[in-house]
Amino acid sequence: MKEKFYKYIEALQNTITSQLEKTDGKAVFREDIWKRAEGGGGRTRVIENGAVFEKGGVNISAVHGALPKSMQAYFGVAEADFFACGLSLVLHPVNPMVPTVHANWRYFEMYDKKGKVVDQWFGGGQDLTPYYLFDEDVRHFHAVCKKACDAHHPDFYDSYKRKCDEYFWNSHREEARGVGGLFFDYCKPTDNMGMEDWYQFVTEVGDSFLESYIPIVKKRKGMKYESIHKEWQEIRRGRYVEFNLVHDKGTLFGLKTNGRIESILMSLPPTVQWKYNHHPEDNSEEFRLLQVLKHPKDWTGE
Amino acid sequence: MKEKFYKYIEALQNTITSQLEKTDGKAVFREDIWKRAEGGGGRTRVIENGAVFEKGGVNISAVHGALPKSMQAYFGVAEADFFACGLSLVLHPVNPMVPTVHANWRYFEMYDKKGKVVDQWFGGGQDLTPYYLFDEDVRHFHAVCKKACDAHHPDFYDSYKRKCDEYFWNSHREEARGVGGLFFDYCKPTDNMGMEDWYQFVTEVGDSFLESYIPIVKKRKGMKYESIHKEWQEIRRGRYVEFNLVHDKGTLFGLKTNGRIESILMSLPPTVQWKYNHHPEDNSEEFRLLQVLKHPKDWTGE
Repeated sequence: MKEKFYKYIEALQNTITSQLEKTDGKAVFREDIWKRAEGGGGRTRVIENGAVFEKGGVNISAVHGALPKSMQAYFGVAEADFFACGLSLVLHPVNPMVPTVHANWRYFEMYDKKGKVVDQWFGGGQDLTPYYLFDEDVRHFHAVCKKACDAHHPDFYDSYKRKCDEYFWNSHREEARGVGGLFFDYCKPTDNMGMEDWYQFVTEVGDSFLESYIPIVKKRKGMKYESIHKEWQEIRRGRYVEFNLVHDKGTLFGLKTNGRIESILMSLPPTVQWKYNHHPEDNSEEFRLLQVLKHPKDWTGE
Repeated sequence: MKEKFYKYIEALQNTITSQLEKTDGKAVFREDIWKRAEGGGGRTRVIENGAVFEKGGVNISAVHGALPKSMQAYFGVAEADFFACGLSLVLHPVNPMVPTVHANWRYFEMYDKKGKVVDQWFGGGQDLTPYYLFDEDVRHFHAVCKKACDAHHPDFYDSYKRKCDEYFWNSHREEARGVGGLFFDYCKPTDNMGMEDWYQFVTEVGDSFLESYIPIVKKRKGMKYESIHKEWQEIRRGRYVEFNLVHDKGTLFGLKTNGRIESILMSLPPTVQWKYNHHPEDNSEEFRLLQVLKHPKDWTGE
């Protein structure tokens, strides 16, 4: 399974980066191959100063070795060996009318001392962070997520949509990072779903990514905007930074377990502002976004 | 002691903000009085878009009540009541030749169920974060810190300078946040130092703040700079954000114990950049700064 999934994310990285380059039309991804001292490594691809994408990364990695102490505590296990691979992407567009997107699909294995697999699971998801709210865009994104889920289980979309709203909650701000999408973790064999079924599910979600996001980009990338919209985008990007550095488990694990810092922190936006006690005007578009972030909505109903 | 120290920080806030307004010459501090639902509150003073200070805050607070669960775990105690007050300041100058400065002086008391004080201590310090390194400025800052320490104990400066280098260490970057200063905590009664002696020490350090920083600001605020210097300042401000959100205990406690978010996060810089894998050119001024941040120096020797 690990070879199969790694081949999948290798190919998906190629598909996604080439499609994003086409959409951008100006910048191309630069690639960095890196090795992890304790075992494994990755292929980081970053785009900067594009016509559409101000900064973004589409990274794959496959790491293995002894499970770091901090992860032992987190998983509640003793010393063990592990393997983990995944694709992570974040895209920060230039135009504040185009939403930021994040996605991650990953596979994890743990081994006993004889090298036998004792545990394995998939995890991942994708979520959207708009600066200005176009309801039809959010509905499109969620509809694609739902379609991918519905092909595998009628409860998956509701369950993983709710988990996404819970996970990407900036608790110190009492608001969501964005308008959600999917978040699933510890997808292990059950009566109904074997590992092969989970593989089919996760790859269906991964395959749906471009369909969920690119049409939104194409629709919004040429929209006119003023400096006040860019300022609002940069203030909201500050909340993105706060979530990633204060709450995001993936980022914090990476920082505390000797991950490749530049690959982890490629998720941080290119330009950011913090203003003291900033509040948008009542009933403005910015205000409307905040209301939705404070009260996550159902985006697939009527 | 708590009334005495609170009166001290109230007066010091007035002294510092009026002096900073004079130095700025354009912007003035705006004041927000806030209350904490669980007990106490604070007086936040923020300056923005000044001629010298792009953003800064000089805040006092005095909070009390039941010790939050997360702090019980941190202090290794059972349920208890507490009182804490302090002054915190951060100043982010416009001109990248002027360093950012941070300071905090605080007093803490814990009570048993009958309201008797069972523990009390002072903590605090001040530290400098330059974007361009003027050795004479750093030596001046440390000389003032040393003078305040030496008046109370010959070992204090060395000890608290080292603690400062240790505390403000951005471990995931393997570099210091800045060029240090003083950091002390849990200053409790000993054979040589009663609480009154600690009060005298902490207030001497607090009183020395303006002398440590204002002469540097006056010397550098008129210096010419180009957009590349501003860009470097904004990239380095990114490291400041990373430290405060990932490592700083004060910030994280505030965020996780229902502190006033806007008063805590006033420490974040006004404009920030993250570039992928940015490294200054060998032997540039920016490179020289990084070398010093990676290998903290003695600033008071010959």
